Amino acid sequence: MNIEEIRREDLHPGKFIEQQVREISSTVRSELAINALSGGVDSSTVTMLGHRALGERLKTYFIENGLMRRDEPRKIASLFAGLGVPVEIFDAREQFFDALKGLTDPEEKREAITQTFYRDVFGELVRESGARYLLQGTNYTDVEETVAGIKRQHNILEQLGIDTEEQYGYTVIEPLIQLRKTAVREVAKALGLPEEIYTRPPFPGPALAARVIGEVTPERAEIVRGATEIVEEELCDTGTFQYLAILHNDRVTGVRGGKRDYGFQIEVRCWDSKDAVTGSPTRLPYDVLDRLAKRITTEVPGVVSVTYNITRKPPSTIEAV
Amino acid sequence: MNIEEIRREDLHPGKFIEQQVREISSTVRSELAINALSGGVDSSTVTMLGHRALGERLKTYFIENGLMRRDEPRKIASLFAGLGVPVEIFDAREQFFDALKGLTDPEEKREAITQTFYRDVFGELVRESGARYLLQGTNYTDVEETVAGIKRQHNILEQLGIDTEEQYGYTVIEPLIQLRKTAVREVAKALGLPEEIYTRPPFPGPALAARVIGEVTPERAEIVRGATEIVEEELCDTGTFQYLAILHNDRVTGVRGGKRDYGFQIEVRCWDSKDAVTGSPTRLPYDVLDRLAKRITTEVPGVVSVTYNITRKPPSTIEAV
Repeated sequence: MNIEEIRREDLHPGKFIEQQVREISSTVRSELAINALSGGVDSSTVTMLGHRALGERLKTYFIENGLMRRDEPRKIASLFAGLGVPVEIFDAREQFFDALKGLTDPEEKREAITQTFYRDVFGELVRESGARYLLQGTNYTDVEETVAGIKRQHNILEQLGIDTEEQYGYTVIEPLIQLRKTAVREVAKALGLPEEIYTRPPFPGPALAARVIGEVTPERAEIVRGATEIVEEELCDTGTFQYLAILHNDRVTGVRGGKRDYGFQIEVRCWDSKDAVTGSPTRLPYDVLDRLAKRITTEVPGVVSVTYNITRKPPSTIEAV
Repeated sequence: MNIEEIRREDLHPGKFIEQQVREISSTVRSELAINALSGGVDSSTVTMLGHRALGERLKTYFIENGLMRRDEPRKIASLFAGLGVPVEIFDAREQFFDALKGLTDPEEKREAITQTFYRDVFGELVRESGARYLLQGTNYTDVEETVAGIKRQHNILEQLGIDTEEQYGYTVIEPLIQLRKTAVREVAKALGLPEEIYTRPPFPGPALAARVIGEVTPERAEIVRGATEIVEEELCDTGTFQYLAILHNDRVTGVRGGKRDYGFQIEVRCWDSKDAVTGSPTRLPYDVLDRLAKRITTEVPGVVSVTYNITRKPPSTIEAV
């Protein structure tokens, strides 16, 4: 790997922004560029950099895949509209859930989402747009983990399974590739993005599908969406690196109204970490854990059990799927 | 239900023992009785009561089903030998694992174990022995939860699916049926059973099979046995009501030697409870949770993730299966 990290302590956000805006401008020149915004800190930062460099020559889509947080498409589009950046929401829920039907293997689910995203949905939008440049939020940890075989990053060229650069003339621009998450947050802040964006916990590429063990159906996505909402509400002020809810496939015994009730289990994870490379479970007060369990079992239909991850990374990973 | 509880505060262990011994003697008279000892506080107490009442006219078996804690058959038999109570170990591992093959539904697993135990293994031993009385450790909470439909207690008569009393002339004697667990512990102590027995955490009827979500194979029983040993070593001095390890069927992503590794997840539960009717997760120090996770992921092959239950009963139950 010949990409060199810019460490947070060596980063001058203002200079970095200036340099990246210049580079995007000089690469794209008078052509069109396109990007997909998920609302995460990486894609939000890339959107702002692209917007500064290209103005309306950047076309930004929010792909509604049915796997985002509650109300996320509308919230994010309206937040960016407020910053003067137009974002178009593209409804692709049916395509994603069709592609996920019957799949339980994590790799197959990932692959289905990636293919649906790049080949069927975003790929089509790119072709329609006439854009020759794609802006991507790949960061340094993604690259490192892809090299190590831990993660598969969304490198669009390889993911499409075709040499798009030759075949279609796409060029991928990855302005954040030298930064880890904490450095990206600094850049996001310096770009004037609101705190809810630059302190946003990381959200995986496959979105809530990465938080569902077993088949991802609209119903199961809804359960994990409900649990995610509660976990994020309760833990957003903890200042921790990341917090998440995972819907398990295993059913466990519960009891409701004095009767046995097999139900769902949600696993909560909350991480202390600098860079996602290593991490340890946050030592949350038990009152907080108790409130999480009560709210999730009360407010999310069918959930009878909540656990808290107590394993460090390694040997755990941040996400479960 | 017309069984009346004897509350712990109303219990006089000495009088209770005297009364039960007299009742067992007068019921069994000069006949033979038989019982199965698992080493739990209930069956240990029943064994001692039966031994006091009947001496060598009580035949006690330890059924080795491959689902007990590590070394348990040998340990328990030798402990009772030291108290002058002969216990015969009967190796039925093959029968149990054959019966469990391919089963994943909790009810079907429970049923397979119950049928193998009562009909194939213990049933056969009863018939061979010529005993007309069976001593059973059913307690008040078991009865209550059976009535409520939360649990299915091992009522041998119904479990055998035949009217054994009419057909074979068995009579079931349940000396602990008016006591909850804490009262049983008092009786056990007064009977001179050692502390490791009367403070023993409850162990479910289906033993480690109740701690395995999904298929119970010899290999998976071994994994949960390893985790159980660590949990019991680390938590035995906490004075809590019960602590246990559950092997999940879901695989989660882990990382070993820098490479992705799908592995097993163990859920740890530790309960504060008076009577198992309600309970809340013990607020264990995080150093203890961290040590549990480290030991389990290091010492038990294939385990990459450990969680801690944070849900109260209800809506959770004490056990997961």
